[in-house]
Amino acid sequence: MTTRTVYLKDVPFDEAWRSFRSALEGINRWEAGESETVPLDEALGRVTAEPIWAKISSPHYHAAAMDGFALRAADTFEASDRSPSQLSKEQIEPVDTGDALPDWADAIVPIEAVEIVGDRESILLRAAIHPWSNVRAMGEDMVATEMILPAGHQLRPVDLGAAAGSGHDQLVVRRKPRVAVIPTGSELVPPGTIPKPGQIIEYNSLVLAAQLEKWGAAPTRLPVVRDSLEEIRAAVSKAAGEFDLILLNAGSSAGSEDHSAAVVESLGELLVHGVAIRPGHPVILGMVNHEVPIIGVPGYPASAALTGEIFVQPLIRRWLGLPESDKRQIEAVLTRKVHSSLGDDEYLRVSVGMVGDRTVAAPLSRGAGVITSLVRADGIVEIPAGIQGYAAGTHVQVRLYRSPEEIERTILAIGSHDLTLDLIAQELAIRGTRLSSASVGSLGGLVALARGEAHVAGSHLLDPQTGEYNLSYIRKHLPETKVMVVGLVRRWQGLILGAGNPKGIESLKDLAREDVIFVNRQRGAGTRVLLDYQLAKQKLDSEAIHGYGREEFTHLAVAAAIATGRADCGLGIQAAAAALKLDFLPLFSERYDLVIPEEHYQSRLLEPMLEVLASDQFAGEVDKLSGYELERPGEVLAELG
Amino acid sequence: MTTRTVYLKDVPFDEAWRSFRSALEGINRWEAGESETVPLDEALGRVTAEPIWAKISSPHYHAAAMDGFALRAADTFEASDRSPSQLSKEQIEPVDTGDALPDWADAIVPIEAVEIVGDRESILLRAAIHPWSNVRAMGEDMVATEMILPAGHQLRPVDLGAAAGSGHDQLVVRRKPRVAVIPTGSELVPPGTIPKPGQIIEYNSLVLAAQLEKWGAAPTRLPVVRDSLEEIRAAVSKAAGEFDLILLNAGSSAGSEDHSAAVVESLGELLVHGVAIRPGHPVILGMVNHEVPIIGVPGYPASAALTGEIFVQPLIRRWLGLPESDKRQIEAVLTRKVHSSLGDDEYLRVSVGMVGDRTVAAPLSRGAGVITSLVRADGIVEIPAGIQGYAAGTHVQVRLYRSPEEIERTILAIGSHDLTLDLIAQELAIRGTRLSSASVGSLGGLVALARGEAHVAGSHLLDPQTGEYNLSYIRKHLPETKVMVVGLVRRWQGLILGAGNPKGIESLKDLAREDVIFVNRQRGAGTRVLLDYQLAKQKLDSEAIHGYGREEFTHLAVAAAIATGRADCGLGIQAAAAALKLDFLPLFSERYDLVIPEEHYQSRLLEPMLEVLASDQFAGEVDKLSGYELERPGEVLAELG
Repeated sequence: MTTRTVYLKDVPFDEAWRSFRSALEGINRWEAGESETVPLDEALGRVTAEPIWAKISSPHYHAAAMDGFALRAADTFEASDRSPSQLSKEQIEPVDTGDALPDWADAIVPIEAVEIVGDRESILLRAAIHPWSNVRAMGEDMVATEMILPAGHQLRPVDLGAAAGSGHDQLVVRRKPRVAVIPTGSELVPPGTIPKPGQIIEYNSLVLAAQLEKWGAAPTRLPVVRDSLEEIRAAVSKAAGEFDLILLNAGSSAGSEDHSAAVVESLGELLVHGVAIRPGHPVILGMVNHEVPIIGVPGYPASAALTGEIFVQPLIRRWLGLPESDKRQIEAVLTRKVHSSLGDDEYLRVSVGMVGDRTVAAPLSRGAGVITSLVRADGIVEIPAGIQGYAAGTHVQVRLYRSPEEIERTILAIGSHDLTLDLIAQELAIRGTRLSSASVGSLGGLVALARGEAHVAGSHLLDPQTGEYNLSYIRKHLPETKVMVVGLVRRWQGLILGAGNPKGIESLKDLAREDVIFVNRQRGAGTRVLLDYQLAKQKLDSEAIHGYGREEFTHLAVAAAIATGRADCGLGIQAAAAALKLDFLPLFSERYDLVIPEEHYQSRLLEPMLEVLASDQFAGEVDKLSGYELERPGEVLAELG
Repeated sequence: MTTRTVYLKDVPFDEAWRSFRSALEGINRWEAGESETVPLDEALGRVTAEPIWAKISSPHYHAAAMDGFALRAADTFEASDRSPSQLSKEQIEPVDTGDALPDWADAIVPIEAVEIVGDRESILLRAAIHPWSNVRAMGEDMVATEMILPAGHQLRPVDLGAAAGSGHDQLVVRRKPRVAVIPTGSELVPPGTIPKPGQIIEYNSLVLAAQLEKWGAAPTRLPVVRDSLEEIRAAVSKAAGEFDLILLNAGSSAGSEDHSAAVVESLGELLVHGVAIRPGHPVILGMVNHEVPIIGVPGYPASAALTGEIFVQPLIRRWLGLPESDKRQIEAVLTRKVHSSLGDDEYLRVSVGMVGDRTVAAPLSRGAGVITSLVRADGIVEIPAGIQGYAAGTHVQVRLYRSPEEIERTILAIGSHDLTLDLIAQELAIRGTRLSSASVGSLGGLVALARGEAHVAGSHLLDPQTGEYNLSYIRKHLPETKVMVVGLVRRWQGLILGAGNPKGIESLKDLAREDVIFVNRQRGAGTRVLLDYQLAKQKLDSEAIHGYGREEFTHLAVAAAIATGRADCGLGIQAAAAALKLDFLPLFSERYDLVIPEEHYQSRLLEPMLEVLASDQFAGEVDKLSGYELERPGEVLAELG
């Protein structure tokens, strides 16, 4: 076991990158590039290593562009409707499209434009033919010796045609860089395994290899290596003899089982250990045997994938002779305040949509471990070092992962999450519209609507005074906005219980039992409002409930507390119980509505969603969920404002 | 031999498409889609056939997010800098990142934040720890039963990670449709062959297969079939038993050797023969055995590739359960008047660039046989049936093949073409800038600059009065514009002669010989101006020259006339002679300059071009060309306006 070390230092990104690039200078395969010859039918997507020059012209002869007759244009100059010209057998020659123009001829008349006299002996023309009519002149398409495509061009389907047409049957392209991806860690288990606590499903190598493949490299995923300095050293040393680049995953930090830095140091040069970026700062850059670059990729999945984008992609593009990647940027309004570390460049993942005429960017989870933050991300906002963050409402530049057209076809839903939103998302996807949803609780959703940050909010807020859903809350939080309350479903709320209900809990009354520990939801959550309403209605004292003061922020957190034995029960929806294979006691049926400002309700963007809500297909899907029934889906239940 | 038929009729695109789609209804594999299960490491780019639901949560336990100690937060609430709390061995448990949180604990303190007392027996804390600090709560990333991705989603690298992390090691994806591409034609020869007149290099199947691969299908290129009704019928009939879709290339027109329609009719149903689109109207849509759709693809290469985009791509996307393709459209100003057939939808290929603050679209060759029109195209302008064309200056919608960022980094060059422009394009490509050039002759280039349609014009216009290049022409055609004349090269003009100079031509004087036939360039061409200037200087009479009145529009057309024996000589540049392996007699060295409006000369867009002109690399490349020498490249030779 090595002793713990600290980072050499977190160097700024530009400095790290500069030192890595200068280490690559003088290494032939990284400097000049290597090429190989591939047949045309394997060249799609490859990058030309040299310009493609036409070897032959296309057409390579004067060619008939129509079925008809070759002739001398001069023989037709007198022809008119009133006095047609008759051309004899000797003056014409029948040709099909693509035939060579006879030497003596200079035009083609199409078959449709002539009358054939006698037994094809001669033809009659009623209009003059211009010289070179219906002839594809030699070189019309490509001229021998002309440059068809430059070097450094990624080959598309039509390019292959142009290469073939100008005389090639193979092309010289950049060799794909061979990249080894080495996962390390004694805690890793393969995908498909049911992991024990402390075990981690190894999928970073899957993501890195897929990125490499997409960017034009040839990745190889090597077997997982245990957390042993010697074994990792052996694996890296072997890979250095076979690959052009090594990605060593995890162990790049400074923990007791982090060996990457020591391995790189012992086999070559440790250039950088720690880069001032978030997520992903424990990055290692180095050279093995002074010729094979190695990148120590952090272990958290979002960090690993972003390290791929930030460090690996430019390296692959450099190898292939391509200019730096396109940065499609658009301006958007940040929906929430974001603090950022002064010392680091931060890569903030955001979802993006057009609400009215504003493009808004909503920050997603910043956790380095949250791979779904990248799955859900529509783009990245870079917050450079030296900036402590941005206020809500700041105009920021977003580097997009999706096309602006996809962004324009995105419905932003916010508020309380419900399973049926997933079903709607699925039906919308088929119709070419995206539903991007964020869970901030019912009240949070109304506040977001008021701020113009979303099109739709899911809400199940019960008014304890009136027993009515949502209306009084909307009046309070969206006083100035014309809003539609649109029906969706009723769903069962109930008690989530340990599997098999070991404490024999039968109703809300049991919450006050001495031997029962409860776990609560936060104030403002629709479920908390419901609990307090029902307690009051049944005249139960919340102070008698053990654990009433312990608040969790999601249905699942409540279920997790029960699954791990920290509590015996909590109020929530059936899906959360099902997720962790817990028991569920249904108690109250509640309404879950969609709140939609009229401006969006009327918009073309939302049309397909309203279609979905009214469809038999959607009704059928909801029917399959247990604990749900439709509640006038898509109907306007109330209009406010 | 079958008798010639005419098109059934050219039906409008929408009608053709509708009848094709309704024929697919009821055919199971086209209606419902077929799926297959693939391991995660083969799933990149595949399309999900069903939603991906999380099988397990991630993390699937409460996990330590840092190396440090697990503890109860309540034990630290009193801790402060002044009175640190000491926690005993029994109150803490050392954990590494990723370890499970012990049941009794509810927070982690990072190793960096504690002082270790004695031999790791206890720790000292100087600040309180909040409950759940540095803990990744169960389900932080994904919650079991939650929908991770919808059906109909094309899988990206991070999606594979999310699928693995939520418990999957394989996914159900749409099976790739198997598509047969059958080339037909007795005149076809394979790529790499030197074709004889009348022979055609078969590359449509290469382009179609590459398109299919790119769009997510599984193409098979079948062997070329001769123009025989029986043989084509046999090939199609066999393919119908093995494939989901058949593309039958060429023979879709109505010529004597066009058998496609008859084949489709004899094996099933001929739905459409002829669609009102240009290029590509001889399209066939049909069904073989009432279950396998077949598309008769026109033979001209630009038509074939566009038929792929218009008919085949939407079919493949339909099979895969994807919504219709993105149509990235931008508005641009058309540079030239375009006539269009009233009855047809026309797909006009255009090059696109930003000149100042205008986006301009310049029509490219409309020839159905010109594959380079697609190679060079930045987008397509659809001119719907019912419109006879657009005037120059019309604002049109362009469906882009490239990203708007690439368009912004495109330098539009127009005017006389020269080989060195290809070299500049190559050097610019390395620098991430595109040079898109159009040949319209020197004078045409100046006119285009005046109209704001390009950034740069190549020009070699000699003023016969002054013997000076370009200046007087610029004064005349760009009187209002501040313009820089930038040096590039001197190049040799001379007489292009038959191989081996069979007529023994030695100077311009020989043009007047009785046995010599000349071929001329059009008025306004720099080469024509040069000829007339030299004839006058040498006091030679143009009327004595046989063929002086026959005008061609390019250097190559002149060379082609000589190569095919239609003429004995013509004035042109050495490259044109070399292209057709002809002799060349150098006579005059002429200047070829770049004309650049000051507005663009100063722009960031042109910076890399001026860098290239000044580079040793470029000088070295020009040195390799015969007949060229550099003439103060990149230097401002004159400022006008």
